[in-house]
Amino acid sequence: MSQQTELMAEADDYFHDECGVFGIFGRQDAGAIVTLGLHALQHRGQEAAGIVSYDGQQFHVERHAGLISDAFTRPDVIERLKGSRAIGHTRYATSGGGGMRNIQPFFAELADGGFAVAHNGNLTNARAVQRVLQKQGSIFSSTSDTETILHLVATSKERDTNARFIDAVRQIEGAFSLVALTTKKMIGCRDPLGIRPLVLGDLDGAYILASETCALDIIGARFVRDVKPGEMVIITNKGIESRFPFEPVKSRFCVFEYVYFARPDSMIEGRNVYEARKQIGVELALESPVEADVVVPVPDSGVPAAIGFAQAANIPFELGIIRNHYVGRTFIQPGDSIRHMGVKLKHNANRRMIEGKRVVLVDDSIVRGTTSQKIVQMVRDAGAKEVHMRIASPPTRSSCFYGVDTPETAKLLASRMSVEEMADFIRVDSLGFLSIDGLYRAVGETNRNNETPQFCDACFTAEYPTRLVDHEGVDNVRPLTLLAAGA
Amino acid sequence: MSQQTELMAEADDYFHDECGVFGIFGRQDAGAIVTLGLHALQHRGQEAAGIVSYDGQQFHVERHAGLISDAFTRPDVIERLKGSRAIGHTRYATSGGGGMRNIQPFFAELADGGFAVAHNGNLTNARAVQRVLQKQGSIFSSTSDTETILHLVATSKERDTNARFIDAVRQIEGAFSLVALTTKKMIGCRDPLGIRPLVLGDLDGAYILASETCALDIIGARFVRDVKPGEMVIITNKGIESRFPFEPVKSRFCVFEYVYFARPDSMIEGRNVYEARKQIGVELALESPVEADVVVPVPDSGVPAAIGFAQAANIPFELGIIRNHYVGRTFIQPGDSIRHMGVKLKHNANRRMIEGKRVVLVDDSIVRGTTSQKIVQMVRDAGAKEVHMRIASPPTRSSCFYGVDTPETAKLLASRMSVEEMADFIRVDSLGFLSIDGLYRAVGETNRNNETPQFCDACFTAEYPTRLVDHEGVDNVRPLTLLAAGA
Amino acid sequence: MSQQTELMAEADDYFHDECGVFGIFGRQDAGAIVTLGLHALQHRGQEAAGIVSYDGQQFHVERHAGLISDAFTRPDVIERLKGSRAIGHTRYATSGGGGMRNIQPFFAELADGGFAVAHNGNLTNARAVQRVLQKQGSIFSSTSDTETILHLVATSKERDTNARFIDAVRQIEGAFSLVALTTKKMIGCRDPLGIRPLVLGDLDGAYILASETCALDIIGARFVRDVKPGEMVIITNKGIESRFPFEPVKSRFCVFEYVYFARPDSMIEGRNVYEARKQIGVELALESPVEADVVVPVPDSGVPAAIGFAQAANIPFELGIIRNHYVGRTFIQPGDSIRHMGVKLKHNANRRMIEGKRVVLVDDSIVRGTTSQKIVQMVRDAGAKEVHMRIASPPTRSSCFYGVDTPETAKLLASRMSVEEMADFIRVDSLGFLSIDGLYRAVGETNRNNETPQFCDACFTAEYPTRLVDHEGVDNVRPLTLLAAGA
Amino acid sequence: MSQQTELMAEADDYFHDECGVFGIFGRQDAGAIVTLGLHALQHRGQEAAGIVSYDGQQFHVERHAGLISDAFTRPDVIERLKGSRAIGHTRYATSGGGGMRNIQPFFAELADGGFAVAHNGNLTNARAVQRVLQKQGSIFSSTSDTETILHLVATSKERDTNARFIDAVRQIEGAFSLVALTTKKMIGCRDPLGIRPLVLGDLDGAYILASETCALDIIGARFVRDVKPGEMVIITNKGIESRFPFEPVKSRFCVFEYVYFARPDSMIEGRNVYEARKQIGVELALESPVEADVVVPVPDSGVPAAIGFAQAANIPFELGIIRNHYVGRTFIQPGDSIRHMGVKLKHNANRRMIEGKRVVLVDDSIVRGTTSQKIVQMVRDAGAKEVHMRIASPPTRSSCFYGVDTPETAKLLASRMSVEEMADFIRVDSLGFLSIDGLYRAVGETNRNNETPQFCDACFTAEYPTRLVDHEGVDNVRPLTLLAAGA
Repeated sequence: MSQQTELMAEADDYFHDECGVFGIFGRQDAGAIVTLGLHALQHRGQEAAGIVSYDGQQFHVERHAGLISDAFTRPDVIERLKGSRAIGHTRYATSGGGGMRNIQPFFAELADGGFAVAHNGNLTNARAVQRVLQKQGSIFSSTSDTETILHLVATSKERDTNARFIDAVRQIEGAFSLVALTTKKMIGCRDPLGIRPLVLGDLDGAYILASETCALDIIGARFVRDVKPGEMVIITNKGIESRFPFEPVKSRFCVFEYVYFARPDSMIEGRNVYEARKQIGVELALESPVEADVVVPVPDSGVPAAIGFAQAANIPFELGIIRNHYVGRTFIQPGDSIRHMGVKLKHNANRRMIEGKRVVLVDDSIVRGTTSQKIVQMVRDAGAKEVHMRIASPPTRSSCFYGVDTPETAKLLASRMSVEEMADFIRVDSLGFLSIDGLYRAVGETNRNNETPQFCDACFTAEYPTRLVDHEGVDNVRPLTLLAAGA
Repeated sequence: MSQQTELMAEADDYFHDECGVFGIFGRQDAGAIVTLGLHALQHRGQEAAGIVSYDGQQFHVERHAGLISDAFTRPDVIERLKGSRAIGHTRYATSGGGGMRNIQPFFAELADGGFAVAHNGNLTNARAVQRVLQKQGSIFSSTSDTETILHLVATSKERDTNARFIDAVRQIEGAFSLVALTTKKMIGCRDPLGIRPLVLGDLDGAYILASETCALDIIGARFVRDVKPGEMVIITNKGIESRFPFEPVKSRFCVFEYVYFARPDSMIEGRNVYEARKQIGVELALESPVEADVVVPVPDSGVPAAIGFAQAANIPFELGIIRNHYVGRTFIQPGDSIRHMGVKLKHNANRRMIEGKRVVLVDDSIVRGTTSQKIVQMVRDAGAKEVHMRIASPPTRSSCFYGVDTPETAKLLASRMSVEEMADFIRVDSLGFLSIDGLYRAVGETNRNNETPQFCDACFTAEYPTRLVDHEGVDNVRPLTLLAAGA
Repeated sequence: MSQQTELMAEADDYFHDECGVFGIFGRQDAGAIVTLGLHALQHRGQEAAGIVSYDGQQFHVERHAGLISDAFTRPDVIERLKGSRAIGHTRYATSGGGGMRNIQPFFAELADGGFAVAHNGNLTNARAVQRVLQKQGSIFSSTSDTETILHLVATSKERDTNARFIDAVRQIEGAFSLVALTTKKMIGCRDPLGIRPLVLGDLDGAYILASETCALDIIGARFVRDVKPGEMVIITNKGIESRFPFEPVKSRFCVFEYVYFARPDSMIEGRNVYEARKQIGVELALESPVEADVVVPVPDSGVPAAIGFAQAANIPFELGIIRNHYVGRTFIQPGDSIRHMGVKLKHNANRRMIEGKRVVLVDDSIVRGTTSQKIVQMVRDAGAKEVHMRIASPPTRSSCFYGVDTPETAKLLASRMSVEEMADFIRVDSLGFLSIDGLYRAVGETNRNNETPQFCDACFTAEYPTRLVDHEGVDNVRPLTLLAAGA
Repeated sequence: MSQQTELMAEADDYFHDECGVFGIFGRQDAGAIVTLGLHALQHRGQEAAGIVSYDGQQFHVERHAGLISDAFTRPDVIERLKGSRAIGHTRYATSGGGGMRNIQPFFAELADGGFAVAHNGNLTNARAVQRVLQKQGSIFSSTSDTETILHLVATSKERDTNARFIDAVRQIEGAFSLVALTTKKMIGCRDPLGIRPLVLGDLDGAYILASETCALDIIGARFVRDVKPGEMVIITNKGIESRFPFEPVKSRFCVFEYVYFARPDSMIEGRNVYEARKQIGVELALESPVEADVVVPVPDSGVPAAIGFAQAANIPFELGIIRNHYVGRTFIQPGDSIRHMGVKLKHNANRRMIEGKRVVLVDDSIVRGTTSQKIVQMVRDAGAKEVHMRIASPPTRSSCFYGVDTPETAKLLASRMSVEEMADFIRVDSLGFLSIDGLYRAVGETNRNNETPQFCDACFTAEYPTRLVDHEGVDNVRPLTLLAAGA
């Protein structure tokens, strides 16, 4: 395995969230404001971004690879995004692969005017719907599941935009937090289970839709409320209207947003993410106590849980692993002479904090295990007397089909090993995962309601809350009797 | 002031170190290894990098703008850097401005073969020497002070390379940690005061010279020792030789390397940087205690001192300010409507950790004060009951002429305000700086020896340890009676 | 008017053909062969090019701005175009504007497999058809008229590909020479009037479709025959099949292809283009004789007619105007001081051949007249005693709607001036255009059959051979009683 | 041999001139005017260009790869070239290889101010001089022979600029037409033999120095006179001064400038280049008559001689070979299947003008012969009954060391074959070269004065008019008894 492959493997050894969405209606320089909102949502996707604005006459579309702070800070790009209404999207490549044509928002000139849509989540029946549409003559210009929504709106027989939009979203299944823009409206919509977040904000009277509250904070906008699971909000010049086009079901928000995806300073359904993570550390210290000299977070995502763990366990919290801030996605070294050097591109042990000590490493999750293995080895090489790994979530055993880029189930370490085997594999003195009930407690529940779980936790439990039409035969998907509305 | 200007101003509101150097002699794939070493030294300079290798026949030169992980990971670039000896340099634009021609290492074909040199530090008499050389017919192809060294070697009347090199370094003044490569040798040299760091390492028998130990760690090389102030080490096929070409003086290492520049995991002259910073936090808590509910670091540089402060003061350490990891160097928003929004591109207060609390903010230094002002305002907006700022260094009152990019003295807040005025300016309830003796204590001294200070602390004291030939008449430079050797 | 504007105006002062198409079926390295064919057709469009290949499993699409010799000679691009069947297109931006999404061939995954189409010509009812399709839910991803064809095929209710293709082409009007590629077939089709050329070739048993014979010559392919007006040829593994899906009408090939567009070495409908142009010069010498010392072509397009003129008039042919081979499309000079210098970026008079002489200038056409004006002035400044302009075509009075980029009618000099006025405008001693009958004679007819003209000559006569559905109300379009089939 | 290699070989099968120089002193927008002058000299070098301007305070330097119409038409580039004095250079890579650092003009800050120099020609003792300078400590930043001149000026012990410049040019040998710019002056200088051209022009009172008169024509400047061989002209605010710093020798202008390099519309030493070429065709028709049906030029360089030949021989002149205007420098086709197709990227026979005819092909020279071979084969494949090749110069047997990029002598076909063998090699029915006396007659002499030849014709005769210090031992260089001054 070349160094590059190793680093790519390392990049593959994390979960990736895939999308952030942001829209504003009725505010001068809407395009520029959307760049700021997307910048605050950059942690939800770094591969590409797009913005569509409407100036009352025309739609303007900009799509660029890379970070917001790359292309979207060029004055010519911002100036082309004229108008007081705009929606945007930042993505980590998920369903449909890369390529400029897959960058959202998707836009089309429909018979009754332009229509743009941005989507956080993933549909589980997009391929099936697409095949039907193609037979009727629809031509797809991308490989993204989101384009399906556009064609459903375009081919709907309903008269007005709202009805066509409802017609469309009733035919799709999976996770979707959508923001759409037409010549008259901005529409927000969450799937009936509310798997992905979507919040409503207000900037001096202009409505905002955003994936997380941190995107409101960056521009000093006021948090109004979460868009509700299954809710569709329609924002026009006259104000906001709320509809519930789906059959009501109990919501199941993605619990992993608390563990890893969301930004620590965001508030989700009334909970502060940083505080949830610290509480996870507290629960973990209670469930898996250990005698040790130092608590060391695996940077950066393990930090809040490590702080919680250290406080609960009354063990000093120290930066025993230092992260190189300048790691890009690829780093190639040819030549066998280097390949076997065990190069530490991303992290380095801070030997003085490690040597001769009993170390508790706190990380958010274990995906394939290879990164954990390396980190443990690095900490041992730095002279640790004992290494105890504590993971701020239950073992991740199943793929996500709702908008998180996960390896196929078989590549997840926890899908093929017991905790003891995993401890051996990563070579730690002890390994502890948070229990599923511990996780539910950390986010405010008393425990998991196993009949009707309060969250989507399919990555831990393989209990998928929707049908998986496009994935039948894939992996070890359990048949579900309890299906989401819209099915 | 536009948003861009603000961010630039914010970028100006930090100190910048300027260079990292790295060389290896006698190891296959030397060019690739230097890329790794420079990657580990990336915090010392992000604007551009260069590598010169020698394959026994020919020198190969690559210079590129940007991060190591950009151009220097392209296989064609690495493959062109043939040979088992190579030196490299990563830079933050300092003396001489930008431009490809200023990217180091400098290389020239001299009468007796190729000669390459990479320099961390800054010369204080380069312009004066350059004028003399130009009168003799030397043509300068860059505006860098480092090129002067090359011409001094080229025009030296001495016979052999070592003597010519010594002839050259005896004529220059200021801060210099040099790594040079010829057809036969790799040479390392620190100025007599040892202002900038330089360490010697070993990788399976191949010698390494590097600015910091973290560049040894990345490739698993062994730390041998610091190159001594005033020492010149000559590495050839036959081994290593040490010389001391300068008149001996007491060393004065840059104390700010401990405060801010060096990487926390590096060991400098026997001290761990992270530990020094934590100890700074401890001293600060002792010198400037305060009753508070939470200790919040200004990310990322304030973290170690904040941990130390929190432990010493027994106040909880919390991530009350969240940093956006994706901030580039420029972020432009046109339009007045946005300019006045107080956009928070870089940081966001984590309101839940702040609201209703007495907050101690810990930062490493105050440069112009505008960034501190904004951060304090952000924390107040998030509902802090009290805001107390604690700074992990004494007030910075004077420009650095030894390789750190500082604003002119007049722009340094501490050069024109008392601590009370500064507290008013940044609007805190209390403001505390570490004392100069406290700083010396944190790095292991009992106090500052005011007769012959153990470190260069000119940025705090304006006591420059060398003549400032090129800067006469600049700022409020005090005449010095005690001059460095080589003068 | 700035120099740039002037040069742009000059670029606007020529007619531009817009497309070349090329396809090959059943030959190893089909993608690479298409690059060669398009290179030979580069004179038909220089702005962008695209190639679609099919390897029996998958279609591969490459679209790039610029010349074939730019992007399409990169090995990675060629290597991605796997397979033994490929079609390509080179374009001058016409209908639909620029942008990557308008680069042909267009490709879509239809319900029964991939479908690619490349189009030379221009449809006159594309907008009308598009509006109907949009109402049915079709989403257009470009602004090109060609995409309409793709949607007509996609939405056709017919069963098999041939029938769907026929269904589609029967609904379009205007000029179209099409090459399409499916998983089983390559299809060629010319509109019933055969306005644009399309030839059939053979390379060691592999069929080729190409706009001109010069694209066969470049690879040593054999010319088989012209595809007939209204003919559809279907090429499969089993051979070639010919169909005539349109109601038969008398053909009307674009006569301007002979005057200007086609390459001199191409054979079109049995005539050599160079010979036709020389014969035009001969006819012109007979129709508009003049006593003179030298015949000077306006390079490069005026050369063949000037040779014919010189031979017929027995006046020496000389290169009295030298062309700069290195003129790009834009050349900017700021500053008033230069704007008024009358800079000769493109041509220079060869004074020694001009001074004191009676000069006959031969050019192919006059569009806006500003270029002619400048050239005449340049020749006068070089000392010509008399300047006589002879134009190798009749006055161009009307816009083309069949795939040639012409200024709107009002900007054509001949639409608003008599020949005498034009002579005054460009300041020549005499001005002669070829008569329409002279042009017909030069290309082998005895004269123009005014009842049923043998060619499309609408640019000279405003007699458009089809309806102009999308252009109603535009310009001075005469109603036509004789319509093309397919209407 | 791959197709790419073939095309590169084809590119190698022509001679390349290497430089054009242009300067203007005392005219607003001097930088922009230099771009125009260089554009007119683009045929003398297409690889890169540079301009240095002086605004009375500062020098401004722009160097860019590619054509003038690429980088030098960008407004930001032009705007940076402030000032009323500027010199420029366009180059084909010659001595010293490629790379940005070899792009001229060379510029340095010398002790008495900035100094820029641009050079057409090639020095024959640059390496020898460079070695001496390096021993004295000069550092070369390029591999160009021209940089030597800069160092000679920099290290000269003379007091004033003129004397230092004279000191420098007296030490160099070979071909040099120089244009230099200082804070006070523009200096032009031709080597004592006047091997390369240099003319003086006037634009409304501002002096111009340029390689050819066509660069005066483009901006409507007046031709004043040729700078004389061995002359140095010094242009200041006060006017122009002329000096002759070299020992006088009989001039020997490069006769190949008439044959191939110069633009047809330029006047060189009183002769029009186009007319000289036509006269070459006339002489060729007289010396090597042939019965034929058609005279066909090999485009584009063979056209004027073909016109002369056709007129003298009274055989029709026809464009029997059509050139593709869009050939770039590289065109890659992988795959054996294409390599052997004999692809005609650059030219195509115009079969109708060739078939069944006795063809006289007229070309300017034969370098390696491979291109001629291909062209002849192409003409035979098009059905020519007989093919007679006539070459508008004597056989080229020796390399040029004066600024023309020629293959080493051994690769020149004429250096190893008789005319009969060459005729066999390229497979023509007859082959005729112009005699050396015929060439001298065509350019106005009665014959070659073999004692003291009127031109440099070393490429035909191997009689080099200077020492070849750097090339001793290279090729079959004859010792010369008659040396140029400056030696």
